[in-house]
Amino acid sequence: MPRHDVQVSAGELAERFGLSLRGDATRLIDGVGTLAGAGPTQLSFLANPRYRAQLAGSRAGLVVVRTGDADAHAGDVLVADDPYVAYARIAALFEPVPATAPGIDPTAVVHPDAHVDPLATVGPLACIGARSLIAAGASIGPGCMIGEDCVVGSGSNLVARVTLVRRVVLGERVLVHPGAVLGADGFGIALDRSGSEPHWIKVPQLGGVRVGDDCEIGANTTIDRGALEDTVLEHDVRLDNQIQVAHNVRIGAHTAMAGCVAVAGSTTIGRYCMIGGAAGIAGHLEICDRVVVTAMTLVTHSIREPGEYSSGTPLMDSRSWRRNAVRFKQLDALARRVGTPPKETE
Amino acid sequence: MPRHDVQVSAGELAERFGLSLRGDATRLIDGVGTLAGAGPTQLSFLANPRYRAQLAGSRAGLVVVRTGDADAHAGDVLVADDPYVAYARIAALFEPVPATAPGIDPTAVVHPDAHVDPLATVGPLACIGARSLIAAGASIGPGCMIGEDCVVGSGSNLVARVTLVRRVVLGERVLVHPGAVLGADGFGIALDRSGSEPHWIKVPQLGGVRVGDDCEIGANTTIDRGALEDTVLEHDVRLDNQIQVAHNVRIGAHTAMAGCVAVAGSTTIGRYCMIGGAAGIAGHLEICDRVVVTAMTLVTHSIREPGEYSSGTPLMDSRSWRRNAVRFKQLDALARRVGTPPKETE
Amino acid sequence: MPRHDVQVSAGELAERFGLSLRGDATRLIDGVGTLAGAGPTQLSFLANPRYRAQLAGSRAGLVVVRTGDADAHAGDVLVADDPYVAYARIAALFEPVPATAPGIDPTAVVHPDAHVDPLATVGPLACIGARSLIAAGASIGPGCMIGEDCVVGSGSNLVARVTLVRRVVLGERVLVHPGAVLGADGFGIALDRSGSEPHWIKVPQLGGVRVGDDCEIGANTTIDRGALEDTVLEHDVRLDNQIQVAHNVRIGAHTAMAGCVAVAGSTTIGRYCMIGGAAGIAGHLEICDRVVVTAMTLVTHSIREPGEYSSGTPLMDSRSWRRNAVRFKQLDALARRVGTPPKETE
Repeated sequence: MPRHDVQVSAGELAERFGLSLRGDATRLIDGVGTLAGAGPTQLSFLANPRYRAQLAGSRAGLVVVRTGDADAHAGDVLVADDPYVAYARIAALFEPVPATAPGIDPTAVVHPDAHVDPLATVGPLACIGARSLIAAGASIGPGCMIGEDCVVGSGSNLVARVTLVRRVVLGERVLVHPGAVLGADGFGIALDRSGSEPHWIKVPQLGGVRVGDDCEIGANTTIDRGALEDTVLEHDVRLDNQIQVAHNVRIGAHTAMAGCVAVAGSTTIGRYCMIGGAAGIAGHLEICDRVVVTAMTLVTHSIREPGEYSSGTPLMDSRSWRRNAVRFKQLDALARRVGTPPKETE
Repeated sequence: MPRHDVQVSAGELAERFGLSLRGDATRLIDGVGTLAGAGPTQLSFLANPRYRAQLAGSRAGLVVVRTGDADAHAGDVLVADDPYVAYARIAALFEPVPATAPGIDPTAVVHPDAHVDPLATVGPLACIGARSLIAAGASIGPGCMIGEDCVVGSGSNLVARVTLVRRVVLGERVLVHPGAVLGADGFGIALDRSGSEPHWIKVPQLGGVRVGDDCEIGANTTIDRGALEDTVLEHDVRLDNQIQVAHNVRIGAHTAMAGCVAVAGSTTIGRYCMIGGAAGIAGHLEICDRVVVTAMTLVTHSIREPGEYSSGTPLMDSRSWRRNAVRFKQLDALARRVGTPPKETE
Repeated sequence: MPRHDVQVSAGELAERFGLSLRGDATRLIDGVGTLAGAGPTQLSFLANPRYRAQLAGSRAGLVVVRTGDADAHAGDVLVADDPYVAYARIAALFEPVPATAPGIDPTAVVHPDAHVDPLATVGPLACIGARSLIAAGASIGPGCMIGEDCVVGSGSNLVARVTLVRRVVLGERVLVHPGAVLGADGFGIALDRSGSEPHWIKVPQLGGVRVGDDCEIGANTTIDRGALEDTVLEHDVRLDNQIQVAHNVRIGAHTAMAGCVAVAGSTTIGRYCMIGGAAGIAGHLEICDRVVVTAMTLVTHSIREPGEYSSGTPLMDSRSWRRNAVRFKQLDALARRVGTPPKETE
């Protein structure tokens, strides 16, 4: 659903984004689309080889491609080293930007001890707590609840219905999607065995959350505040939806996590890691830089070497699966009988 | 906690729902209950064979059963082809319906460019954004945040604190539970390697979300909007709580998913599929109609044949599990030593 | 980020918490910190043996330790049977308590048929529905949405943006974190096959949710209301973030669950169970008291014996994992060839 009120010529796109054009420099582009769906006034791209077969038949007016793919398309192309990056930059031209004027909506509730910069935006039905600071150019969307002692840096955007519970400091240009909860109590409980019925007592969670510049935090993701020190996301960390980051976790710069990942307390994750969807990472571990974890893997020990890691079993039809899975219970007996020598094992 | 201000005779129930009654047609029923808990003025049902043993001793005034189970109960019965479906219809008579009069609560914030039908209901502290349309008979519960360019169809019900971020179109009679977030940005990022410190840039998410008639969307479930085209749920899709549906996913009519399922981007799921709790489905796959996926299974490739699919290992006491699981690392060595011929493999 | 406006002497701490002091009773403590981070006016503790090496070098003014660890620290120590419990109690002295005066914020919306005790607190932009009761000393934070027929007991605290949908009864001192949704419809659907296009019909969810005293419910956790009877948490149940508890589940007293656990409908879990992160528990099961389930395990059958249970496979580098995982599909063939005798199996 691209907007159609912006028009740019192919030549201008080439120049502005440093790409080389093969085709008509005066062609006007007014939107973007998929290879299969784009029309003659729209730009498309080929990044994932999975979609290469669609290139030849595409009706797109202009396609961003790698050098090697340029000849597979009869129409006009923009050649880029990284077509996906180039496309992302161009597509931003066609993204509708909601108009929000700075200022505090009359239905918002701002604590007298909070400080909202005159160039910040606070939307309808939002709430800003004591001693919290909203910087110039920051936008607090409708229904956001910000507690005490928080900072929202310049250019940061809390889309709607985001909660910063307490002692949450966001850097600049941080984007937080609806339903995210940052700074809730870490899950700290201690079993008091002194009485006749042992019961849990709560361990106070005295730390905060610090989020670096240019991070993105997905819808309904939760990041708890630290027990004593802070839970930390370095800059440019990208979290998808429904991720759980427990207290005292530290996530290195440029690390990205797909939806539904769970990271347990006090684990440190390096820079440039890629964590697949619904993976779990146990607590008190150290994961080094440039580690890739595949979807739904459980990480149970520290990882010292960059590389890709997995656990789990392959997908099968359930009848085959049951037949094989029941044998998993006999695996040790089986191995003992066969006598696999230790040297062959990992 | 059934209400007791509705009374219906057994005969009337039989006639109204096309069931055959064995027993007293004048008996008055004023509520529903479990086989174990229902009393002489309440109706119960037997659908799951797991509870058959409770039938003989049930004090329920009336029980909905299959033909084959009718003789196992001395009391009055209504015989149905599908007792669970018949029970569901009857129980709806006893469901308290919150009284909400059409109109916009004075504490709600409605953008001047939004259109709320005079026969729609907008609850307290809700917010409706520019160019959004709320149809006659739709209900927007307390604290819901609806952004720009959304449509809520006739008879749809956003219970409370639901967020429709942007470009979300709901059909008729769609039920959305609290905390659900529809239309947040899909997780599209591209790694820009051009500088000295490679970093992520955001790929604009220009599509929307389309949800067909009669869908149900659980609490805290998230459905992202598409990158270029829409994320789509066809009609009568039923999603439980805490499900993550990534951008560009398409889910076929009548498919149901249990809680905590994660579906990665651009995957297409067929009609009449049943996805078990906490299952994961990787991106860019095609799952055909009538596929059943068991709980916590990871689907890593497309599925072309209807049927049931699984992954994972059986539950064991941890000591046995550790002994066997460590052998999983030797499985290839073991198989080589034994020399399982390829023809025996799946 | 401990507060510094509270000062307590070491001697007073020893006396107040029944600990034995080795060191200067007049030393003033004004906060708490980690072994590595605490300074001379702060108290720290050693509970997890993983951090024992940090004890000798700690600059903390006072450290809570077990008897056996006292000699490993040259500085002042408080000796406790359970240092973590003692620390938790002491740290509570230094926890900033947000000042909230009883009363209803003028921006809150309270139904005329609701009852809010004059000594309860209702924060900004909260909403209380018909026939709901907020007891003395309870606190309803900003943006909370409470529907019809709910009870919030004395001393309970809904931090912010919590939703109690309908028929949710919370005991005393229950702590609920932001984004939690209690009392949404259970996921009850029945496939009506009577027409030409089979479709789902909704099974009314007529029960409620009952939560005992001293429970804690994490951010974005969901607990559905029962179909006929109530979903129940007994007292002192501790749930971390993003947990899904389906309808008709019963969780015994003192059971704790880490983040992202999913419990399917009608399952009963005993007392003093510990469920690891992202574990799944299938429906209609019975789990006895004192069961430990490790992270990401799937529980598919009832557990009658206390102990620890697991499923899954170990973490490996992906290359090794693929080589071994593919053999999982041959496991039955392998076992048949080797002929593992049944007596060796579990």
